[in-house]
Amino acid sequence: MKKSSTAEARVRRVRDGHSAEAEDVVAVEEPLEIRVVESRAGHEHSHSVAVTMRTPGDDFALAAGFLFAEGVVRRPDDFWRIEYCVDPGQEQEYNVVSVVLRDKVPLELSRTLRSFYTTSSCGVCGKATLDAIKVREPPTLPNTRPRIAAKTLAAWPDALRAEQSVFARTGGLHAAAIFREDGTQVAHTEDVGRHNAVDKVIGGRFLEDEMPLHDCAMLVSGRASFEILQKALMAGIPFVAAIGAPSSLAVDTAKEFGMTLVGFLRGASFNVYAGPARIA
Amino acid sequence: MKKSSTAEARVRRVRDGHSAEAEDVVAVEEPLEIRVVESRAGHEHSHSVAVTMRTPGDDFALAAGFLFAEGVVRRPDDFWRIEYCVDPGQEQEYNVVSVVLRDKVPLELSRTLRSFYTTSSCGVCGKATLDAIKVREPPTLPNTRPRIAAKTLAAWPDALRAEQSVFARTGGLHAAAIFREDGTQVAHTEDVGRHNAVDKVIGGRFLEDEMPLHDCAMLVSGRASFEILQKALMAGIPFVAAIGAPSSLAVDTAKEFGMTLVGFLRGASFNVYAGPARIA
Repeated sequence: MKKSSTAEARVRRVRDGHSAEAEDVVAVEEPLEIRVVESRAGHEHSHSVAVTMRTPGDDFALAAGFLFAEGVVRRPDDFWRIEYCVDPGQEQEYNVVSVVLRDKVPLELSRTLRSFYTTSSCGVCGKATLDAIKVREPPTLPNTRPRIAAKTLAAWPDALRAEQSVFARTGGLHAAAIFREDGTQVAHTEDVGRHNAVDKVIGGRFLEDEMPLHDCAMLVSGRASFEILQKALMAGIPFVAAIGAPSSLAVDTAKEFGMTLVGFLRGASFNVYAGPARIA
Repeated sequence: MKKSSTAEARVRRVRDGHSAEAEDVVAVEEPLEIRVVESRAGHEHSHSVAVTMRTPGDDFALAAGFLFAEGVVRRPDDFWRIEYCVDPGQEQEYNVVSVVLRDKVPLELSRTLRSFYTTSSCGVCGKATLDAIKVREPPTLPNTRPRIAAKTLAAWPDALRAEQSVFARTGGLHAAAIFREDGTQVAHTEDVGRHNAVDKVIGGRFLEDEMPLHDCAMLVSGRASFEILQKALMAGIPFVAAIGAPSSLAVDTAKEFGMTLVGFLRGASFNVYAGPARIA
């Protein structure tokens, strides 16, 4: 049985000095191990590349989105299949996802961004981090698309919240969504980890072979960090909006790669930190 | 010059259809590389163990707290010194912290929790994750201490917010604080990453040789995840409160190890997910 994204919890509710036993619902957090399997001359070699604490649901999209952002896979036909796997003698816990690469796809884990941070010979700083992205050859973004009306943008936080079914019950999840220029919502995901929510929403589009997402904007429920901008950039998304604040390196990333970055999006009020030309 | 924790950003502020250029302040996000240096027979061997995206400030506490939570160091005299280091021919960016172990301290990176996740032979699931913690031999917690009055607890969110100087200017930071039973605040930290805020606040106490923190409670500004409970447990903190929601695995961790877990702490209203006996 697949994992649920919510769990029941017995709690003691305290309200202004009064307390009572009650049933509560919490967001499930469980480890997901992501494995990459190389096939070479009929033999399969499995590599564990990451364990992330995630909310079950959209696990294949999460694995695909993570590996895409890390540069391990570039298109869906880079792999034969994605599957839940289980080691011999163990129960299927739906917590290990294997991505089985096609024969000719090279697995260069040493080139992934996470490794790059620590092996870069140009030091460790914000600038070196941006240089590390360039080595990954991110897609060149269109200069003016998507062009989004301020009125369209203003409606997105409510749309995001309306879709947050698990959040509504638990108060415990981050969300990410992808929208088109005309305001249509293309996809929506939730997770206890904000990076996971982004990997899921981008990974879903990747599995549908829709990369690069040049005509799309991404909205995140929390703050905009460097890693969120980097994942959007790798997916070719030129426009990122956050309900919360951006970090300095998120702003630097947006400016360096010609992205639009909106922060503190609260209806008709927001701040544009980079790329104002894409807002109509 | 050390890094600042805030940076200025030129923004376009949009408010109900009107827009104007303005100066804004954002929280700095920069990579910090944590290195562990072994000294053996007069030779030093340096290992890069992590790169985390953090807000500059309390960097030594962050490095110490991280290595303590991972089980690499157990007390301050496990190492000779903590220092900013720089590779030959490069500029000092204050983004690499080295922890130089004493001669007799073994470095068993393979035993750290992060590695354990992926090499555990008991599968990958929440239960296996809890089992992995037990292997690390966390301190046994006192059964009833600290005992905190609901009224004391109610005052902590305001105390946390009052200390959040960088947050007040940027809206972009997580915070963590440690309190004593009588409500005294012992320490307070901020960071763009919530795990970093926790490593900093615990690492600071570790550097003062105050472990285990049996009489203390920890408050975090966001949600309570597994990793936050695990870090508190390793520090011997029996009581964790969060302004936001807990995850299922945070609740399981608290129950398994006899901790108290409070969520949705909003003044006099809160939920107790585990260990209600420590609330007076």
